[in-house]
Amino acid sequence: MTATVQPTLPDSFVRGPAAGHFSSYVVAVALSAAHELGILDRLAADGSYRLDADRELDPVVVERLLNGLVWGDVVRLEDGVAFPGPGFADAYAARGYFYWMVRGCGALFSEAPRVARHTERDGVFYRRDMRAVAVGSHLIGDTAVEGLYDALLAERAFGTLADLGCGSGRRLMRVAEHRPGVRGIGVDIAPAAVELAGRSIADAGLADRITVCRADVLDLPAIPGGADVDVITCSFMGHDFWPYDRCVRTLRGLRGAFPNAGRFLLCDVARTTRTPGPDTPIFTLGFELVHALMGVYLPTRDEWLGAFAASGWRCVAAHDVTAPPGGVMFELEPAADHA
Amino acid sequence: MTATVQPTLPDSFVRGPAAGHFSSYVVAVALSAAHELGILDRLAADGSYRLDADRELDPVVVERLLNGLVWGDVVRLEDGVAFPGPGFADAYAARGYFYWMVRGCGALFSEAPRVARHTERDGVFYRRDMRAVAVGSHLIGDTAVEGLYDALLAERAFGTLADLGCGSGRRLMRVAEHRPGVRGIGVDIAPAAVELAGRSIADAGLADRITVCRADVLDLPAIPGGADVDVITCSFMGHDFWPYDRCVRTLRGLRGAFPNAGRFLLCDVARTTRTPGPDTPIFTLGFELVHALMGVYLPTRDEWLGAFAASGWRCVAAHDVTAPPGGVMFELEPAADHA
Ligand SMILES: C[S@@+](CC[C@H](N)C(=O)[O-])C[C@H]1O[C@@H](n2cnc3c(N)ncnc32)[C@H](O)[C@@H]1O
Ligand SMILES: C[S@@+](CC[C@H](N)C(=O)[O-])C[C@H]1O[C@@H](n2cnc3c(N)ncnc32)[C@H](O)[C@@H]1O
Repeated sequence: MTATVQPTLPDSFVRGPAAGHFSSYVVAVALSAAHELGILDRLAADGSYRLDADRELDPVVVERLLNGLVWGDVVRLEDGVAFPGPGFADAYAARGYFYWMVRGCGALFSEAPRVARHTERDGVFYRRDMRAVAVGSHLIGDTAVEGLYDALLAERAFGTLADLGCGSGRRLMRVAEHRPGVRGIGVDIAPAAVELAGRSIADAGLADRITVCRADVLDLPAIPGGADVDVITCSFMGHDFWPYDRCVRTLRGLRGAFPNAGRFLLCDVARTTRTPGPDTPIFTLGFELVHALMGVYLPTRDEWLGAFAASGWRCVAAHDVTAPPGGVMFELEPAADHA
Repeated sequence: MTATVQPTLPDSFVRGPAAGHFSSYVVAVALSAAHELGILDRLAADGSYRLDADRELDPVVVERLLNGLVWGDVVRLEDGVAFPGPGFADAYAARGYFYWMVRGCGALFSEAPRVARHTERDGVFYRRDMRAVAVGSHLIGDTAVEGLYDALLAERAFGTLADLGCGSGRRLMRVAEHRPGVRGIGVDIAPAAVELAGRSIADAGLADRITVCRADVLDLPAIPGGADVDVITCSFMGHDFWPYDRCVRTLRGLRGAFPNAGRFLLCDVARTTRTPGPDTPIFTLGFELVHALMGVYLPTRDEWLGAFAASGWRCVAAHDVTAPPGGVMFELEPAADHA
């Protein structure tokens, strides 16, 4: 047999940016998977992960996922054991973003070119994994947003909290656990989120104090106990209220559904208007693209302020948050002139 | 209204590697979509692309996809017009890899953590977009593999060519177009590939000379005209023959199905055994992970050579190719002692 000499690969296929984007896609996939499979948590807790630790997993899949993380400097591998690498801490802190993007929205991203066509944008034209979206969101919120909620809630006494678009239900559970007398009402439109939240709440023995119901916040029916609600929270779904007219209608509707709520803490990610570049933070490009694919309008911070003014709520404060990038927490109270 | 000071983002959320992996995932998605939507070809051909050029596309989706490409230095945007950026040439050359990965395999990658579990690996446990896999593959092959096929085919006279796992059918069409007398037989197991190839062949007016049939190469039925086949080609599917015993059986089966084939040009991507690192080329991590997810064994170059020796084929030459990285073209002929 004759054999030609081993050819040199074109530079761009090795160290070029296209090669980097390609392999980074695999890193993102591997981070998302390693989170769900408990590998990242084990690495964080134990400082190591044996590749054969979990007999329920296909060993070749585990090895190849970890190869992706090795390339990304997230772990290093030695004799069948993975250890945190130089990039582990950052990647671990960011795991919610990857899980939200890949597991929550990956199928939709993959179909972007279909969904881009006007003719394909009718009816139920995409699907996301709403359980993963909810889990990713609460991991994202854990960094900064939830601490801010706790601080703002600590400023007031209240008996019942309503959480709109409650996702995994984690905030309701945390508040109920820290405040023995408080009751919670969760509302979410996604069956997978309602199921996930309901199960976690039951497992935590909080079902007598927290109820979760499936409903559309944009067209809220009378919620049992709505008149008891003192405080409303809502994170990472406010953009679903938009465009403007519907947002104003929805915000007014909340005044009716929760007539005695004295505070509404609304946290959302505002649309940026800067050109993408080296300072573009994690999340922005994925968050903005996925909402374009779904046809969901994303308001800027200023557009939000305009909508509050028109809808019976007064914005008492707007706190920018560090994580997620672009996040703003609006503190709202009923406007006297609309009461 | 009071407002807190704009906070500084944690460094790792802006220029850190996790932020880079995240945004690169979006670049990969945008490259895949921009290929399918014809945007990359327009940029390559015309040197510009007006964001509103295609009225069939949602303008916000187009803008956000291009934002991803701006971040990745693939394009720059000026007043609603995109121009090739510094990374355009490399990204364009690599578009087949992105299309294969994102559009072809993105849904499977997103489900990696489910598919990792032994209990989920039965029956039809994943799906890929086989039309996109076929299109991505032929774009990948266009760089180097197809030229090598042409050179090797030019060395001999033949009347009928069989292409196994023919995908988009492009090679059959090219060969038929350049050699007026030659007939072609394509075999593929995926209905989407058979349909795509059949349509392209009919559109090109080659249906009288090329037939495509849906069949499993691992268990090949008698193919009409099989005895007329002089040359067999097969690219990027040989790993599906494996593991070893089935590969040997399949290779022997081809001797029976095509008893008069004097040449078998088999091109595939061999498994690497190097640790992932800065020299890992484009494709490797994605190619190896997706096959782990599907449970498809990937042989190394040496494992291939062992299988030929045992199955009635003699390897006359093995040519490494530059693209795809890890690609090898094996030139095989029937071994006299097995004839
Ligand atoms: C990004 S998740 C955020 C979950 C949770 N608030 C958190 O911070 O982790 C958005 C949630 O809002 C829900 N949602 C979206 N539109 C809604 C609507 N119109 N009515 C009720 N829930 C909605 C989604 O189902 C999803 O669970
Ligand atoms: C990666 S694509 C390559 C397509 C084409 N050969 C090329 O080079 O562009 C692999 C093709 O092999 C086909 N394939 C996989 N297993 C097969 C089998 N057992 N029998 C027939 N075709 C098969 C797939 O459907 C797919 O179209």
